[in-house]
Amino acid sequence: MSAQAPHNTLLIPGPIEFDDAVLQSMAHYAESHVAPGFVKVFGETLTLTRKLFQSTDPSAQPFIISGSGTLGWDLVASNLIERGENALVLNTGYFGDSFEQCLSTYGAQVTQLRAPIGERPSLEQIEQALKEKTYKLITLTHVDTSTGVLNDVKGVAQLVRRVSPETLVIVDGVCSVGSEEIAFDEWDLDAVVTASQKAIGCPPGLSIVMTSGRAIQRATTRQTPPGSYYASIANWLPIMRNYENNKPSYFATPPTQLIHALHTTLSQITARPMAERFAIHTQVSDSVKAAVAQLGLKQLAPNPDAQAHGMTAMYLPEGLTPPDVLPGLLKRGVIFAAGLHKEIATRYIRFGHMGVSVTDANRGDIDKALSALKEALAEAKQAKGL
Amino acid sequence: MSAQAPHNTLLIPGPIEFDDAVLQSMAHYAESHVAPGFVKVFGETLTLTRKLFQSTDPSAQPFIISGSGTLGWDLVASNLIERGENALVLNTGYFGDSFEQCLSTYGAQVTQLRAPIGERPSLEQIEQALKEKTYKLITLTHVDTSTGVLNDVKGVAQLVRRVSPETLVIVDGVCSVGSEEIAFDEWDLDAVVTASQKAIGCPPGLSIVMTSGRAIQRATTRQTPPGSYYASIANWLPIMRNYENNKPSYFATPPTQLIHALHTTLSQITARPMAERFAIHTQVSDSVKAAVAQLGLKQLAPNPDAQAHGMTAMYLPEGLTPPDVLPGLLKRGVIFAAGLHKEIATRYIRFGHMGVSVTDANRGDIDKALSALKEALAEAKQAKGL
Repeated sequence: MSAQAPHNTLLIPGPIEFDDAVLQSMAHYAESHVAPGFVKVFGETLTLTRKLFQSTDPSAQPFIISGSGTLGWDLVASNLIERGENALVLNTGYFGDSFEQCLSTYGAQVTQLRAPIGERPSLEQIEQALKEKTYKLITLTHVDTSTGVLNDVKGVAQLVRRVSPETLVIVDGVCSVGSEEIAFDEWDLDAVVTASQKAIGCPPGLSIVMTSGRAIQRATTRQTPPGSYYASIANWLPIMRNYENNKPSYFATPPTQLIHALHTTLSQITARPMAERFAIHTQVSDSVKAAVAQLGLKQLAPNPDAQAHGMTAMYLPEGLTPPDVLPGLLKRGVIFAAGLHKEIATRYIRFGHMGVSVTDANRGDIDKALSALKEALAEAKQAKGL
Repeated sequence: MSAQAPHNTLLIPGPIEFDDAVLQSMAHYAESHVAPGFVKVFGETLTLTRKLFQSTDPSAQPFIISGSGTLGWDLVASNLIERGENALVLNTGYFGDSFEQCLSTYGAQVTQLRAPIGERPSLEQIEQALKEKTYKLITLTHVDTSTGVLNDVKGVAQLVRRVSPETLVIVDGVCSVGSEEIAFDEWDLDAVVTASQKAIGCPPGLSIVMTSGRAIQRATTRQTPPGSYYASIANWLPIMRNYENNKPSYFATPPTQLIHALHTTLSQITARPMAERFAIHTQVSDSVKAAVAQLGLKQLAPNPDAQAHGMTAMYLPEGLTPPDVLPGLLKRGVIFAAGLHKEIATRYIRFGHMGVSVTDANRGDIDKALSALKEALAEAKQAKGL
């Protein structure tokens, strides 16, 4: 029995449902950001973040900063590349466009490799692009929240190391960290940018960025000063190192309550092997996708290899739009998200299946959602005479 | 009787003690950031922010963004001034230095007008500086958290309008909004940058910036694109306008729980006239400062006109450092802050008296703090044989 007030079940691709203990951590009493108790909690949270990314390399460095996930792009764009240098953006939807705008803001020369909606650039296309120009970094969206497309991060990273070893591999993992397999050290990644409110299961308000020793080296030996003050690695690096070494330190006040909530959820997540967590997300995703197919709905991502495991983006039947279906779901206590990709936003809906809704089968969230979807679709079709 | 777990009373210059209802808002169940219920709460919170600043000018615009107070400086430095343009920073301590660094990061040419520790630049000095160069903007720290110095925001703004009317007046109000009088429209200010965790009484994690129509005009007609992506006014302006007009909108996911907490505290604060709130902060501050003087302690700011009303920074008796006194306070259930200004950090301590500790006399926080201070000082002197 949950301690939370009764509410509809939130099954969008983030924010997601919270564990009671995580939410209670948000109501922690007032603390100084430099008091020993809080310093210890923040330091442990940084160490837990390493475990989340399955990283043991001491030269790798996690950053946890007050902000939305978007702030992580500024951290990459203002520290890991300099004005006039080349960046290659693998574009699989809305979030590729935004990353491009962020990189351009700080002066990078961006080349985009765009895939059709629901697809991802092939390794052959990426290899060709990498051979045409010297890129300081390449970015890819692990799971594009707008389309549910899963990119092959491991494969792309291997390719980059073979073809263009000096190019930094930057992953937008906002909608993947905690639900998709990521082996930060083993895959030799340089930065994974994420946020607290998706598969990590914490309320929104934290930008979380994991960086490699190579990335830190790049940031601290650049020719020109970083392009941002608030997102400057030089400003935050000593702070993160001090907190993890149990020493108070100040650049900007950390959001103490959110750090407690992150500490709680990461303690829960890392108490079991990450492989187990990925396996259960895959298993639930497979059953959701089978059920969706049985309802006659097509996914935006047709290729199973390129389908995310923490969400499903599905086209509605011809003649129906999100406002025909979402209220029927809501009536049954379930919240899905409307489409987000500009070109087709009115033609599809998104179902997020991450975190406690997946790992705690006793909640019954997924079964409830699938029943509600079936009924809401039937109702909407009938209302439209389809 | 508080619903919060027993804890020492936090009386530093932010974060501060929370009202129970505010803290309970932090544990709000999961919500979509574009759901009608949340859109309404966020929109109302923006409208309440106008009331906090006593602003009724519809061309003025509040911004509430996931981040620390520091992020507001990036918003100013990357939108309201362009590369190579001049900025005048009135420096009264640690936070003037930081604002200078932030402005320089985005390419402004910064001139600093530095006052000795505990002092503030005089209106005559400021007038002279304004006549020497054309400044795009002037910044001043309303209350410098490192020294407790209060700047004369109204006087400086009047002076600027008379001498250099096109210069934007930018106030760092992180440690003043909610405890010091601010009449945004009447004083004709252009931006006040603040944060959630000081006299506003909300947990940390929100950057709050109030801007004038003139500032918005400057930001949206600049010659070069804004220097930041995450702190870009162009990116956030339509979002804030839409939310306040009850329309969902997306640039980056807002921290939904913190917005609820801010809504709760701003509803409480604005339920009574702001003048009343300022008066009680002044009254409590006067009695704190009288008690401190009775203990034989000198303030960093000797001039009563330049003393903040939400905090008191006091030199320790010769021979004592913060580690001699702060543990004695803690033993008595009270937390003060150590010094922050580099040059004299070991010689003084800071007492924050803001928010519920001031407005809710039943808590007894201030009396408890003054007794604890008296006893801890006596104990420390005795231990040192002073």
